[in-house]
Amino acid sequence: KLSDLGVDIMEAGFPIASQGDFEAVEAVSREYRHLTVAALSRATKLDVERAGHSLAKAAKPRIHTFIATSDIHLQYKLKKSKEQVLEEACKAVTLARTFTDDVEFSAEDASRTDMDYLEAVTKAVVAAGARTVNLPDTVGFSLPQDYAQMVSRMVKAVEGTGAVISVHCHDDLGLAVANSLAGLAGGARQIECTVNGIGERAGNAALEEIVMAIKTRGDVLPYTCGIEAAMLNRASKLVSAAASFPVQYNKAIVGRNAFAHESGIHQDGMLKNATTYEIMTPESVGVNKTSLVMGKHSGRAAFKSKVKDLGYELGDNALEDAFTRFKTLADRKKNVYDEDIEALLDEGIATAADRMKVVALTVIAGTMGPQSATLTLDIDGRHETTQTTGNGPVDAIFNAIQKIVPHKATLELYQVHAVTEGTDAQAEVSTRLAAEGRSVTGRASDPDTLVASAKAYLAALNKLTARGARLHAQAG
Amino acid sequence: KLSDLGVDIMEAGFPIASQGDFEAVEAVSREYRHLTVAALSRATKLDVERAGHSLAKAAKPRIHTFIATSDIHLQYKLKKSKEQVLEEACKAVTLARTFTDDVEFSAEDASRTDMDYLEAVTKAVVAAGARTVNLPDTVGFSLPQDYAQMVSRMVKAVEGTGAVISVHCHDDLGLAVANSLAGLAGGARQIECTVNGIGERAGNAALEEIVMAIKTRGDVLPYTCGIEAAMLNRASKLVSAAASFPVQYNKAIVGRNAFAHESGIHQDGMLKNATTYEIMTPESVGVNKTSLVMGKHSGRAAFKSKVKDLGYELGDNALEDAFTRFKTLADRKKNVYDEDIEALLDEGIATAADRMKVVALTVIAGTMGPQSATLTLDIDGRHETTQTTGNGPVDAIFNAIQKIVPHKATLELYQVHAVTEGTDAQAEVSTRLAAEGRSVTGRASDPDTLVASAKAYLAALNKLTARGARLHAQAG
Repeated sequence: KLSDLGVDIMEAGFPIASQGDFEAVEAVSREYRHLTVAALSRATKLDVERAGHSLAKAAKPRIHTFIATSDIHLQYKLKKSKEQVLEEACKAVTLARTFTDDVEFSAEDASRTDMDYLEAVTKAVVAAGARTVNLPDTVGFSLPQDYAQMVSRMVKAVEGTGAVISVHCHDDLGLAVANSLAGLAGGARQIECTVNGIGERAGNAALEEIVMAIKTRGDVLPYTCGIEAAMLNRASKLVSAAASFPVQYNKAIVGRNAFAHESGIHQDGMLKNATTYEIMTPESVGVNKTSLVMGKHSGRAAFKSKVKDLGYELGDNALEDAFTRFKTLADRKKNVYDEDIEALLDEGIATAADRMKVVALTVIAGTMGPQSATLTLDIDGRHETTQTTGNGPVDAIFNAIQKIVPHKATLELYQVHAVTEGTDAQAEVSTRLAAEGRSVTGRASDPDTLVASAKAYLAALNKLTARGARLHAQAG
Repeated sequence: KLSDLGVDIMEAGFPIASQGDFEAVEAVSREYRHLTVAALSRATKLDVERAGHSLAKAAKPRIHTFIATSDIHLQYKLKKSKEQVLEEACKAVTLARTFTDDVEFSAEDASRTDMDYLEAVTKAVVAAGARTVNLPDTVGFSLPQDYAQMVSRMVKAVEGTGAVISVHCHDDLGLAVANSLAGLAGGARQIECTVNGIGERAGNAALEEIVMAIKTRGDVLPYTCGIEAAMLNRASKLVSAAASFPVQYNKAIVGRNAFAHESGIHQDGMLKNATTYEIMTPESVGVNKTSLVMGKHSGRAAFKSKVKDLGYELGDNALEDAFTRFKTLADRKKNVYDEDIEALLDEGIATAADRMKVVALTVIAGTMGPQSATLTLDIDGRHETTQTTGNGPVDAIFNAIQKIVPHKATLELYQVHAVTEGTDAQAEVSTRLAAEGRSVTGRASDPDTLVASAKAYLAALNKLTARGARLHAQAG
């Protein structure tokens, strides 16, 4: 989706942090030849080398190395002098340049760094070969005017070298987007941001807000930006589902209510002329107002065209498979909305190669207790059935899975979304399981919340097992 | 909670819009004598009079009257000339002053208004008696520098009159908080904002972000603000639950992740010194990190102290009732967390006077279908039982309720939150029912999602019935 959106640079992982991150950078490097792929690394030899190796197959590799420069971080976290940090930063950049010409350096906690020192570091890393210098507001502390001032000073410091100054803002005080735009005004020409503004703590600057601010306010923000805005809504939904991070209804651009007009006065204005209360159209960010409702009489052609409209590209087999699942759903649910089809397609993609599947489930729940579940699973073609009780129906189901597939994973998150409105809705359930320091998310949708719960738990368990198997295979 | 937070002015409703809004302003006026209570009105005779009457019992009444001033709104929505609008604005202010000395005027869509005209309107309404002039960025269109410029021009325009300029920003481009702070810098001395940033479309500026920006960055934002920051987290939760608007995990200040450090480097820094990655403590906004876990062995005293810690004040009867429900819960759930107790107390408050209650529920669900529910309700002391099927267990339950209590309400929203982590969690279910143009929300929590669903649906239905009865009583 980031590629569909048209981002220039994708930071795909932090290769030294885990085998999974290393593989993610490798996979993105292989697949996306038109994008710059960046790998993160601390300013140490091992980190930089690991980042370099993960990018071996990239068409446009970038190493992004960082070290903190603020007094607080130097004193308490790094326990190093300013001179040491400056030297390590330059060494890391020099080493990174042996892997690729495209090296980015970040001065972590730049906004709380002594400005003279920050200028010295900026000049030194550019002299050592960094082509981009990023100035993170790591703790989300800056106000727009201060941030713009810092950026414009560093832009001057690298004048004539061709180096680009970059912004990276956190949202702890709700100012990440404003600070990013202020940085642009100060001369920055790269913005680091994330879909839905996810990230550490209160998250990073939201890509969709920055993009639409630039597109909507071209009169005072005279910048171009290659992002395909009509993909924003789909990208937001995918990120939200994959990370199990809900988007609040009143989130700008991609929230469910972002284009809803509730007050009578606003509705009156909208009916007379949409520009009275609308500075951008829902369609411009991919929110389809007039949603064609599909049902059990919809044919293969209509389904195929709908899938394409929703922004999915499926091969013939995958399409046929999705169509079968759509027909099953349409038999159980009168109106099938776009969100239902999206849920069904996303689930299809997620469960492509699962070893364990739900065959049958019966649950008895209610006020009488104890709640009980009778579950049959298909494990590599073999059927196993068990019956358990639990504290509530969901607990009973998860106990049943545990009984058939003994495991040590703990449930970190359990969440139900009604995908479409009403009780006739498909429920979408997300689960997050953790084992041995790894965390995976499973999602599933079904008109029956409890069936969706069982499927979502299994989806996560399937991923945990698959990862485990892969890691073992490598170790052997 | 707004009163506990220490807000100066509470805009309690738009009395002409509905009987409910009129009553809300009346009730708040009676109850909160130390606060200024504002009532909203368009710039018409009927509106202003209705606002004035709703405030009859207020100790410090304020009428807030508004009319749009931008060319777009004049031409398409109002179909009036600039002269007409100016005259109507002044008339409304003059009329409002016959009810109270404290009159606020808003120039709707101020940020897209011709600045010379806006200055003329500002001067005229102040001359007519307005003590506050509010400059809304109605469509969330402004950038901080433009907004500051507009504010500072209007501050100059009213110099010497004692009138206060106020800001009111929408978040369509993610800039509401930045614009509000820019307005402060431009000389505004009133900020209109909402808890969790709820409001039309992408919402208004978030109170909690503005408060913490001012408190955290006193060095560059030299303003005082009387808000009790330690109440922010509870206020956020209450608003989220009452409006059924979830707060996203990465929401600044009040999101579940706002103080979570996930990256290893950040965790390392936090362990060495919290200021490396934390600009405010979770405790400062009322997030209790070391949550005392209660269980079935916890006594009345511990429960009472916990309830107080959580910010609730209950009378003896309500406390005893809550304690009984706590013991029932503790029998079914090993660890009872703060969130569980909050859910239980909030539910208790919401269901204080309900005519219909769930007596017993048995649900059979799963892949075999059709899902069925057997439900017994208590309606004014009389028990009724029915059995129905549905498309999924929730649908079956709601069909059963419909069969026992025939009604025409439609379900607008159905939502499940797991209040605490894990399957042993209490599920909190929200429903929104609509009938005859009114919309009510019901919430309930129970370890069994399905029982919570039945209770939440009934809670909403109880409210609809109660409101209907009250309205009929008044009409009669």
